[in-house]
Amino acid sequence: MRAVNKNYKSIWLDKSDPGIVRAINQKRLPFFFEICEFRTVDDIFNAIKEMTIRGAPVIGAAGAFGIYLATLEMTSTTNPYKHLENAARYLISCRPTAVNLAWAVDHVMKKLEKNIPVQSLTAIALKAALEICEDEEESCRKIGINGLKIIEKISRKKNKKPVNILTHCNAGWLACIDYGTVTAPVYLAHEKGIQVHVWVDETRPLNQGARLTAWELGQAGVPYTLITDNAGGHLMQHGMVDIVMVGSDRTVRNGDVANKIGTYLKALAAFENNIPFYSVFPSSTLDPDISDGLSGIPVEERDPEEVTTVTGLAGGKMESVRICPENSVAVNYAFDVTPVKYITGFITEKGIYKAEEKEITKMFADKLK
Amino acid sequence: MRAVNKNYKSIWLDKSDPGIVRAINQKRLPFFFEICEFRTVDDIFNAIKEMTIRGAPVIGAAGAFGIYLATLEMTSTTNPYKHLENAARYLISCRPTAVNLAWAVDHVMKKLEKNIPVQSLTAIALKAALEICEDEEESCRKIGINGLKIIEKISRKKNKKPVNILTHCNAGWLACIDYGTVTAPVYLAHEKGIQVHVWVDETRPLNQGARLTAWELGQAGVPYTLITDNAGGHLMQHGMVDIVMVGSDRTVRNGDVANKIGTYLKALAAFENNIPFYSVFPSSTLDPDISDGLSGIPVEERDPEEVTTVTGLAGGKMESVRICPENSVAVNYAFDVTPVKYITGFITEKGIYKAEEKEITKMFADKLK
Repeated sequence: MRAVNKNYKSIWLDKSDPGIVRAINQKRLPFFFEICEFRTVDDIFNAIKEMTIRGAPVIGAAGAFGIYLATLEMTSTTNPYKHLENAARYLISCRPTAVNLAWAVDHVMKKLEKNIPVQSLTAIALKAALEICEDEEESCRKIGINGLKIIEKISRKKNKKPVNILTHCNAGWLACIDYGTVTAPVYLAHEKGIQVHVWVDETRPLNQGARLTAWELGQAGVPYTLITDNAGGHLMQHGMVDIVMVGSDRTVRNGDVANKIGTYLKALAAFENNIPFYSVFPSSTLDPDISDGLSGIPVEERDPEEVTTVTGLAGGKMESVRICPENSVAVNYAFDVTPVKYITGFITEKGIYKAEEKEITKMFADKLK
Repeated sequence: MRAVNKNYKSIWLDKSDPGIVRAINQKRLPFFFEICEFRTVDDIFNAIKEMTIRGAPVIGAAGAFGIYLATLEMTSTTNPYKHLENAARYLISCRPTAVNLAWAVDHVMKKLEKNIPVQSLTAIALKAALEICEDEEESCRKIGINGLKIIEKISRKKNKKPVNILTHCNAGWLACIDYGTVTAPVYLAHEKGIQVHVWVDETRPLNQGARLTAWELGQAGVPYTLITDNAGGHLMQHGMVDIVMVGSDRTVRNGDVANKIGTYLKALAAFENNIPFYSVFPSSTLDPDISDGLSGIPVEERDPEEVTTVTGLAGGKMESVRICPENSVAVNYAFDVTPVKYITGFITEKGIYKAEEKEITKMFADKLK
């Protein structure tokens, strides 16, 4: 997508130095547009941990690049397979909820089997990482085409009056490689002249909505209105939301969806007010190994300081302010699980699926082959 | 309640100068404990508008004191009744959602009828304002006794394990004159040695939970954990909440409750997870003139800057940081309405009422005499 008047992906291999992976620094946006460079597994680990790189699909890609960088760290005395296995375990441990990270790391690792000569590992890992990027990008492009149908339908129903889409967190191109998941159909609709307007949940604690989704939509010229996480219910009660679209960090066999904390509350409000609620993701987000989301998906608990403070811009520089009494106890669950009963459907690169057992089985078909 | 080792009310008449009304500055808490003074109707208006004084019961008391201060502003050339009527209209216009403000101002105005000699107006207004303070304080004390029964019952059921109470915004003594509404039974339980623990919603945009409820509970030594507004659903899904207790800015004839934006989302989550959801308020919050809350209660829209910025402490002073791109469009609905169907019951100074037509009628009985 275009950002600051140039085409960008959210992560890429440096063109002139193949020892460097680059990514947009998501911690500094929207205040500063900066590119980070990563040369080691540790660099990647820290970037994911601290959310310099965040968003289920792109942390998958970053993990894959991490294995590639691990192959560059091998010396003549290293046991190559041991080193890579350690790197894989380390990277996967970084964030537990989004399945894409484990999926992508495992996907690259499977290509690096023990019968492959050591001197070929780097090339194979790089190829696999780049393929993941291409595939995710292509998936998002297709998600756009599939999701557009739903937006077009609502637009027709409303006689072309703006389609009001509520979204939570950032399921945009920053979270993916390009296009985004939730944003892909929104960008496509906007390009085609279909009137859309996005309600952007700020998404505490790290405000990925206020910082990243608002920035993305602004760059693309899509009309949006920033709201607190508390406001969505009121909007839905009063007919101001036509559709809720959120991403997914992990979608499991029964259709339960783990996504950024607070998603569940929006699903409840959509359900009660008969507003369609879609989860939008590439197939890499499907986890066929867990049958029940509520009991099975590990929910990451992050540093309470993300709750007790807020970071923003003051006097031209980024600053953190404490919003509560000193020494307040806080807890920071980063995700919640939305039970399938509150979900209308799923949009993936392969199509639109109703949140019904038969359709969910279809959605998982390729994963269970 | 005790604060910084002294007994305080949230608003009071200065002991040595009856021309001054004082209140705790709720905008500076929890970072600085400061007392404001008000000498004119304008002072009171601005304090309520800017939320230096906030909370349905205490803005009622402040409005009443405003009429008292208006009587002090009269000169020999003033038409006294005209001046007071203007002051009343002005004060009521300040914040539209909480009915207590209009109720208290009207209550004082009714005592200042045109047959009363001008020289008596001040004394009558002061008496009425002080009575409102006493009555509200007494109501909160009784609310504590009534609400305690519910907490005790849950405590017994849990074999004295901590009762986990989730609350939104600040329905504490700062919002009232003393004790608070939601906090009154919590403080009483804590004093009696019943184990309680409060989940404190931060309550964006102005973070009255993180700033005020956390501060109050900390001062009283009640265990609490600060959470984002997004987290409550997850906690309720996982059995970590025993009861949700919130205040009310206006409770209408069908039992619908207007309260701080985001309350509705918590009510939905409580309803879905079979967790009791109580709205706790003094009778001054009852509005018998509106039959349906969702269509009838005016919802205040405040400055979008409250959404685009967050205020907190940095480097020893209060600072506001912008959390989104420059020039982001934002909207700031300050309240939402929770339909009665999601409410378990109401706790007032007169008792506990189920959220059923017959009981609601009983709750309104005195108001309809």
